[in-house]
Amino acid sequence: MRWIYPENLEDIALGAAVLGTGGGGDPYIGKLMAQHVMRVHGPVQLVDVDELDDEDLVVPAAMMGAPTVMIEKLPRGDEIVEAFKALEAYLGRPVKAVMSIEAGGLNSTTPFIVASQLGLPLIDGDAMGRAFPEIQMVTLTLHGISATPMTLADDKGNSALLNTIDNRWTERFARSITIDMGGASMIALYPMTGAQAKRAVVRGTISLIERIGQSIRRAHREKRDPIEAVLEVTGGFRVFRGKIIDVARRTEGGFARGEATLVGIDEDQGHTLKIHFQNEHLVAIRDGEVIVSVPDLITLLDTETGEPITTEAMRYGLRAVVVGIPCADPWRTPEGLELVGPKYFGYDIEYVPVEERFGERA
Amino acid sequence: MRWIYPENLEDIALGAAVLGTGGGGDPYIGKLMAQHVMRVHGPVQLVDVDELDDEDLVVPAAMMGAPTVMIEKLPRGDEIVEAFKALEAYLGRPVKAVMSIEAGGLNSTTPFIVASQLGLPLIDGDAMGRAFPEIQMVTLTLHGISATPMTLADDKGNSALLNTIDNRWTERFARSITIDMGGASMIALYPMTGAQAKRAVVRGTISLIERIGQSIRRAHREKRDPIEAVLEVTGGFRVFRGKIIDVARRTEGGFARGEATLVGIDEDQGHTLKIHFQNEHLVAIRDGEVIVSVPDLITLLDTETGEPITTEAMRYGLRAVVVGIPCADPWRTPEGLELVGPKYFGYDIEYVPVEERFGERA
Repeated sequence: MRWIYPENLEDIALGAAVLGTGGGGDPYIGKLMAQHVMRVHGPVQLVDVDELDDEDLVVPAAMMGAPTVMIEKLPRGDEIVEAFKALEAYLGRPVKAVMSIEAGGLNSTTPFIVASQLGLPLIDGDAMGRAFPEIQMVTLTLHGISATPMTLADDKGNSALLNTIDNRWTERFARSITIDMGGASMIALYPMTGAQAKRAVVRGTISLIERIGQSIRRAHREKRDPIEAVLEVTGGFRVFRGKIIDVARRTEGGFARGEATLVGIDEDQGHTLKIHFQNEHLVAIRDGEVIVSVPDLITLLDTETGEPITTEAMRYGLRAVVVGIPCADPWRTPEGLELVGPKYFGYDIEYVPVEERFGERA
Repeated sequence: MRWIYPENLEDIALGAAVLGTGGGGDPYIGKLMAQHVMRVHGPVQLVDVDELDDEDLVVPAAMMGAPTVMIEKLPRGDEIVEAFKALEAYLGRPVKAVMSIEAGGLNSTTPFIVASQLGLPLIDGDAMGRAFPEIQMVTLTLHGISATPMTLADDKGNSALLNTIDNRWTERFARSITIDMGGASMIALYPMTGAQAKRAVVRGTISLIERIGQSIRRAHREKRDPIEAVLEVTGGFRVFRGKIIDVARRTEGGFARGEATLVGIDEDQGHTLKIHFQNEHLVAIRDGEVIVSVPDLITLLDTETGEPITTEAMRYGLRAVVVGIPCADPWRTPEGLELVGPKYFGYDIEYVPVEERFGERA
């Protein structure tokens, strides 16, 4: 156990945007919200899953929706606590720990709001080891843990409670309600026991994103290459260097979908890279060939600052290094690939781990 | 109080299709389902609202969705009981009486399933005095009664519980979930006290539809004009006699929408009538002029049998008398017209009560 203070969220939010692979919402906003709450209600205990009792009740909290909408539709901050308390009331027993559902963007810091306000510990881990766009895309699904009962709340005072037969149905209902709520909602879901959490959670993710953030800031201080620092901490690879020349994005079916085009610079001069995204980056296509795909992480880092660029911040002229990062192991199993592999997203390609293609270049 | 037996549902279902104004689902299917349950679980007590104690809990139950979908997606029958019991469990106290939300089609008989299976009395009344397509379109809304907490259940085992800030929001969320559930769902909503029911319910609607059904069947027996019999019981007017020459229907936004065109016969020869519907008939337009509109009832009766024709049963060649029936009084107030008048449905016309236009012809 260790304490996380408002100032620690600087590194956590920065690192979260790296594992957010373009999505998960703007970590800057999430950070400000969580810092504000923590200054009022106090710091948050970060605990390892092994510190939980097997019968402890653990509940993740998150924001759902298109990041493009989230940044225009700022939550008041207490809706997420309302969603969380509504689920706790429905379950009829006290929740012992909060969890982050994804380590990306906004949702790495929103659980701190709940943890601080309710005085609950936060687990050092998440359910993806990155960000993914849909509710069922968590290691919890691989372990047979139900997303429901799940609660949703909006900024107007509306709420919903779902009970579904599987996690794909949860995604379907929750997405529709989130669209009706204006494109973003606050959610509490996947209630689980400590025993289940120990089996299913991706461990240490909060510490990992904190280290990523620290490494970028330390590189700045020490005048070293921040991108190199990110690659060291994450085990990632440079897969392209380019300049963004086009971004097409649309909010569709409750997601921010689109593609970005980069023309190569330096050793990638003369080549083109396209990145398709559904909230998060899904595939990187170089000169027509997929070179990195889900479940591996595709992140754009600003060539100057080494800081991650979210999909909503992508714009003409930005120079970026595209980085590929190996995903958490559970995603590389047949079940994992069925849930979040390229075929699920409509790409008829076989998944090739990023280190197989880029390992020799490292 | 009196008992309703399975055989009484014959008249109730027949009369319900008259007040259903084309929508509310196929009363034949609703009747068979309810009769089956009542043969197993027993008859149902029909009670007047005044027989309730002021603090009694009353809960309406219904099927939601496009009637065109409902007839292809037969409920098992126990989903509606599940939805009802889920709401009762959430409310934490026993429900004392079931109610019909609308007197039209399927939803006049589906509450009998709940009442029979759970051994609860059914109120002789409804919340519309007819059928309307949207959740907020009930006299309960005029009395400030909230549609939520509301539960929805589907045939697969999925369920949802909603809490919204007003009844328009309930409609919005519930419609989305119903579409996700395949276009039809079973719902329990508008929990209210006996005191609220006494103020807000349209009284005697079940008895009224039973009398309508009886009058049609008696006319058949006595070789009298069944249409005349319907007009006598409902206070309605013949507004057009014609042959259906075209029906355009589409399932859109979770509703059966479309229009039917009739060419005049007998004294309406040479004229054309168009009927627009959204589950229920909304307006009747003769030679380009609206002659009957919501909230008044527009019902097609088969010229041969006098039996009502639902929108999904409308087809080329059917000869029908189009009947206009005055709506329940609450709909003619400014608040009532705002909720269900022609302007709400997008028709920029003033509402003219059907008897003002056709009274002298009666």
